[in-house]
Amino acid sequence: MPRENNTSINRRKFIAQVATAAGSAVVLASPFAGFAAGFSAGTMPVQERITVGQIMDLFIKQAPGAPFSNTVDTLKSGSRDVVVTGIVTTMFATVEVIRKAIALNANFIIAHEPTFYNHTDETAWLEKDDVYRYKAALLKKHNIVVWRNHDYIHGVKPDGVRKGLVDQLGWQRFEDSNHVIYNLSPAMTLKALIGNLKQKLNIEAVRYIGDPEQQCKKVLLLPGAYGGKNQIQSIGNTQPDVLVCGEVSEWETAEYVRDARAAGKQLSLIVLGHIVSEEPGSEFMAKWLQEKFPAIKTTHIPTGSSLSFL
Amino acid sequence: MPRENNTSINRRKFIAQVATAAGSAVVLASPFAGFAAGFSAGTMPVQERITVGQIMDLFIKQAPGAPFSNTVDTLKSGSRDVVVTGIVTTMFATVEVIRKAIALNANFIIAHEPTFYNHTDETAWLEKDDVYRYKAALLKKHNIVVWRNHDYIHGVKPDGVRKGLVDQLGWQRFEDSNHVIYNLSPAMTLKALIGNLKQKLNIEAVRYIGDPEQQCKKVLLLPGAYGGKNQIQSIGNTQPDVLVCGEVSEWETAEYVRDARAAGKQLSLIVLGHIVSEEPGSEFMAKWLQEKFPAIKTTHIPTGSSLSFL
Repeated sequence: MPRENNTSINRRKFIAQVATAAGSAVVLASPFAGFAAGFSAGTMPVQERITVGQIMDLFIKQAPGAPFSNTVDTLKSGSRDVVVTGIVTTMFATVEVIRKAIALNANFIIAHEPTFYNHTDETAWLEKDDVYRYKAALLKKHNIVVWRNHDYIHGVKPDGVRKGLVDQLGWQRFEDSNHVIYNLSPAMTLKALIGNLKQKLNIEAVRYIGDPEQQCKKVLLLPGAYGGKNQIQSIGNTQPDVLVCGEVSEWETAEYVRDARAAGKQLSLIVLGHIVSEEPGSEFMAKWLQEKFPAIKTTHIPTGSSLSFL
Repeated sequence: MPRENNTSINRRKFIAQVATAAGSAVVLASPFAGFAAGFSAGTMPVQERITVGQIMDLFIKQAPGAPFSNTVDTLKSGSRDVVVTGIVTTMFATVEVIRKAIALNANFIIAHEPTFYNHTDETAWLEKDDVYRYKAALLKKHNIVVWRNHDYIHGVKPDGVRKGLVDQLGWQRFEDSNHVIYNLSPAMTLKALIGNLKQKLNIEAVRYIGDPEQQCKKVLLLPGAYGGKNQIQSIGNTQPDVLVCGEVSEWETAEYVRDARAAGKQLSLIVLGHIVSEEPGSEFMAKWLQEKFPAIKTTHIPTGSSLSFL
């Protein structure tokens, strides 16, 4: 049973109870409200009784212009007031990741991408879908909170996903002042660059356009699915040797690069895969949490690419 | 110089002149208007003086509900009134395809997908882009007309792209009455199915999710980029063993399939590539043109996949 360790107003705000594994986490509407609910046996030290909302707010306020009036960074499951027992950072709150979070007794998943298979996580169209129902029920049963941290982690300075990726690549020293171009020194062939990226990011295979022997010095790095128009305009603005990105639509950037080459330009394209290109952002997020909330166990669980090659 | 072979009103409608290679095709506003314009030396037989608009209209009227009030099937270059010297059908009017069309003296390209790297072929944002300018100038210089035939070829019964693909796969006998499910007989492993598709469609590699040894009998076949919501709803409605499609967004269908498998479903995914999955539709279109306009030389030029694997 929990007990109240301190009655000062200031500390009362942080007093909450650990939810039982099967029951709902209960909000402390008043410092004493919790006593009416059922509790698990363990009590966290006062300093560690941190809610989802407190963690979200601390991260969000770092982003210039925050809070954003129009954002996909909403809770996909659970509520702000749940007291956090542990955190998992990941690219996608997949069913597998949720199970691992449960095994870790972590009730807060911070995912970079949608939970329910569309950008805005609309679910009305999925109400009768058995996969959606299975996942939603799993989250509910285990009181797992899922927060998408997409717009904010891209909005902080520097962009947290980019920082995670560039750190993993060891490319900090190549970064141009525009923060999207990396001037490799020495230059390397497209084939060598692909090998380098695959090794550093643990990628099975990439898709590419270009001459494997072409020298690449000026790299435009746009992780994730930046959008065809954005990718093409960035190419136009920076005139790189190669665009390295996460995901493309075949009828947009890929065709632009093909035409650019036919028109005589030395432009190549490497499509890493969306997940592998942004997974380091979840590692960045885990480090931030470990620094800001050292008493809460945070685990980065790589989602890994969904797609294999054959 | 051309001459008027026949003065009957009926045939006059089809009288037009072949444009010179460098000049503009001239509209026959009246049967005699053409005489005031400059002509090339050669004259096509009267029956062959067919305009772009006549070809478009004959195809379009086959689609139930045509003409569509909201369609991307517009001219991307040139005009309806240009007299056709030859036709190229293809997935994309790439710079390479345009050059091949010029070499074939074909001034009409019927492409399935956009010409200018976005679904609606908006070009205002590309006005200063050197790749766009190169391509637009190439089309203009050689008086090439480009028509996108996307909504209409999908709109005819049966869907022309699907028919082309299913013919190439030899799967007609497997087709369910809903026209999206193919019940393979005998069933084959996912690995064998992938090998079969690669061989029949001449594909270098595919991306997939699933157990290569899983038996696949019920195939949901959705060529092209059908959209995440449509793909997922089709899976829900048909409960296939495997979805075979052209293109996915990683955060939509791929994650749905991954979660479905984690939830215990026997569902796999094969992503063929957008272009290779719909290229047979351009072959279908070429056959239709050869049948309806036998006097006009029609050539199907496969665009081929833009992306290679490494």
